[in-house]
Amino acid sequence: MWKASLPVYRQTLAHPFLKGLSDGSLPEGRFRFYLQQDALYLRAFGQALSLLASKAPREDWAITLNQHASEAIQVERQLHETLLKGVPRVDTMAPSNYAYTNHLLATAARGSFAEGMAAVLPCYWIYWEVGKELKRRGSKNAAYQRWIDQYSGEEYGKVVGQVLDIMNAEAAEASPAQRRRLVELYTISARYEYLFWDMAWREERWLP
Amino acid sequence: MWKASLPVYRQTLAHPFLKGLSDGSLPEGRFRFYLQQDALYLRAFGQALSLLASKAPREDWAITLNQHASEAIQVERQLHETLLKGVPRVDTMAPSNYAYTNHLLATAARGSFAEGMAAVLPCYWIYWEVGKELKRRGSKNAAYQRWIDQYSGEEYGKVVGQVLDIMNAEAAEASPAQRRRLVELYTISARYEYLFWDMAWREERWLP
Amino acid sequence: MWKASLPVYRQTLAHPFLKGLSDGSLPEGRFRFYLQQDALYLRAFGQALSLLASKAPREDWAITLNQHASEAIQVERQLHETLLKGVPRVDTMAPSNYAYTNHLLATAARGSFAEGMAAVLPCYWIYWEVGKELKRRGSKNAAYQRWIDQYSGEEYGKVVGQVLDIMNAEAAEASPAQRRRLVELYTISARYEYLFWDMAWREERWLP
Amino acid sequence: MWKASLPVYRQTLAHPFLKGLSDGSLPEGRFRFYLQQDALYLRAFGQALSLLASKAPREDWAITLNQHASEAIQVERQLHETLLKGVPRVDTMAPSNYAYTNHLLATAARGSFAEGMAAVLPCYWIYWEVGKELKRRGSKNAAYQRWIDQYSGEEYGKVVGQVLDIMNAEAAEASPAQRRRLVELYTISARYEYLFWDMAWREERWLP
Repeated sequence: MWKASLPVYRQTLAHPFLKGLSDGSLPEGRFRFYLQQDALYLRAFGQALSLLASKAPREDWAITLNQHASEAIQVERQLHETLLKGVPRVDTMAPSNYAYTNHLLATAARGSFAEGMAAVLPCYWIYWEVGKELKRRGSKNAAYQRWIDQYSGEEYGKVVGQVLDIMNAEAAEASPAQRRRLVELYTISARYEYLFWDMAWREERWLP
Repeated sequence: MWKASLPVYRQTLAHPFLKGLSDGSLPEGRFRFYLQQDALYLRAFGQALSLLASKAPREDWAITLNQHASEAIQVERQLHETLLKGVPRVDTMAPSNYAYTNHLLATAARGSFAEGMAAVLPCYWIYWEVGKELKRRGSKNAAYQRWIDQYSGEEYGKVVGQVLDIMNAEAAEASPAQRRRLVELYTISARYEYLFWDMAWREERWLP
Repeated sequence: MWKASLPVYRQTLAHPFLKGLSDGSLPEGRFRFYLQQDALYLRAFGQALSLLASKAPREDWAITLNQHASEAIQVERQLHETLLKGVPRVDTMAPSNYAYTNHLLATAARGSFAEGMAAVLPCYWIYWEVGKELKRRGSKNAAYQRWIDQYSGEEYGKVVGQVLDIMNAEAAEASPAQRRRLVELYTISARYEYLFWDMAWREERWLP
Repeated sequence: MWKASLPVYRQTLAHPFLKGLSDGSLPEGRFRFYLQQDALYLRAFGQALSLLASKAPREDWAITLNQHASEAIQVERQLHETLLKGVPRVDTMAPSNYAYTNHLLATAARGSFAEGMAAVLPCYWIYWEVGKELKRRGSKNAAYQRWIDQYSGEEYGKVVGQVLDIMNAEAAEASPAQRRRLVELYTISARYEYLFWDMAWREERWLP
């Protein structure tokens, strides 16, 4: 999965939004746009994780996914109490956010457990890799640095490791055709991760 | 809901299984049968709660339901480490257990959030009421007494209170026709609660 | 599948309800009870087929399953206009009917396409085999004979053949573990087919 | 619904793709791109209709939706045998197509019946209105004219009328809050209808 989506990952790292988080050139309005959309994203992400918990073939996985689902909502709430404090709430997902979360929800609701896991994995994994990379780069902006610290810490790494373990166990039992499908779903989400930063950079609106 | 299913509740309290828990006349084999089936039940119950978490219209409800889903699985695991220690695992649900859990899963998967909540509520509420009643009666059997203590404690009462709060909030916004449907789904689950004890009493098997 | 559930099938053929359809000893009230419950069953059966149509991996299968879903509803309506003419409508499923249809709906909604097909197959296949067997036996009751003719005709045989073709194609690609699961789901439905006749014979009611 | 999305509809009619269908200025490659994507769309649209059939509260609606689901697949197949004859099949949905169909599938799978109907309605209704408008304008290109005839005919109008009847009946029983949600879902699909033409005009590809 990582290899198949490496070109997408490289373009993600090179995106002006991520460059701007490090060198401080990211306008704060666009960061706020990102955070507002991320809060909406986390809610839907939690719903996809609950759906996957309901399909999990192993009990410990169900426990893990239920906990991640709760945590996604709690992270969203903390966002509103910290970085988004005083910023008006936004109700409407921007187009790329809506497309990404419907991809997650439709796959988690209609696909197999493994397919749903493949769709949610990039959000975990790419944030972890991006987080570590940005940590190395550092940031000139204190608020951006705090955000970076969150996704490069040990604790977050463990969370990502749990999901990778589930995915590896499922992929080990999948047929070649099923594995191709898993890589395909993973790659779509990896693209949406790129598009999510791009959406914030462009402060994307619905047209027409 | 309580009023509509009061006759069912009274018959439940009068069932020889529950009488036998107090006066000690319940054969231990039937109690073990009950616990083995309950372990299978809790797994499916947790899946229904995860499905409901994915549909919850309020974030705090989603957090609560994800936590209850995890706890259902953890209670199931504790069962195997305590009361069912050394007892061989059973893989197959008895007919009444399978019918009950499919009612929960089909309603949680296909119905509205309120409908799913109405279906899972009796498991919480009736256990709480039964637990308090059996507490008053006491038990001559130490193992039965430990089981009774679990469902009559303060902590369990709080868990039930959370679910009642959700149900009341949803019922307050439902139309008269929707409310009738909620009572209907509640009553079906209340009957299945009776049938679950009865299943254990009869050590029910699949026929043919 | 057929081999695994052969004992169940033999007990089904020997059930007094089916014997009574041939020798005319089946009380008409029980036949009416059966038809009323069957009308409710067909509605839910059609819903399960629509769910499977939405998951079908091949377009021709999706077309077939959508058509079967429509036909199930149309057969139900014809029932009310012919054999159930003048008989009051019943709203409530008897326990075995509710358990059977929730098994179908929960499996079709939550399982894979192949799992859902395994669950709906016995309704098709057992009726076809029962229909042909009863045709050989004949019936002394003209109404029962008309009912037998419906499920032993060429046209019905073609419908069943379509579903068997889908199941065979899916089973050919399934892993051994998946195939065991398919046989398990099939066998549960085969048991419910027996229980459905038995339900009508006993004019089963909800207890308590 | 129509009023709320009128600005979107006006922009749709003014889009160079639709103007080009009439005055013949639409490059055939873009029309082919549209047809290839439409074939993929129809498959997913049929799946959403099957899901809605499984949720329909009235039997005649379930029959209608199952039939529409079959017809969507049959129209897709005819496309490949007529307008797309000899044109290589495309496997990958363009981004706007994938976003639109996931909106339909996620809403049909997870929302209420009325919510799913609101999401699928624009595809019916806007094509009917666009079809009649383009019929008035006529086309200088014979292939485009045949396409226009399909969506402006009596038969297609009846199909649309069936869906409008269902939507009106459901909306009549909805609360004000539910109706706002229905208009919202309708409007999102109306935007996706615009974006679908725009996607074909730009021969949209995935980025990165």
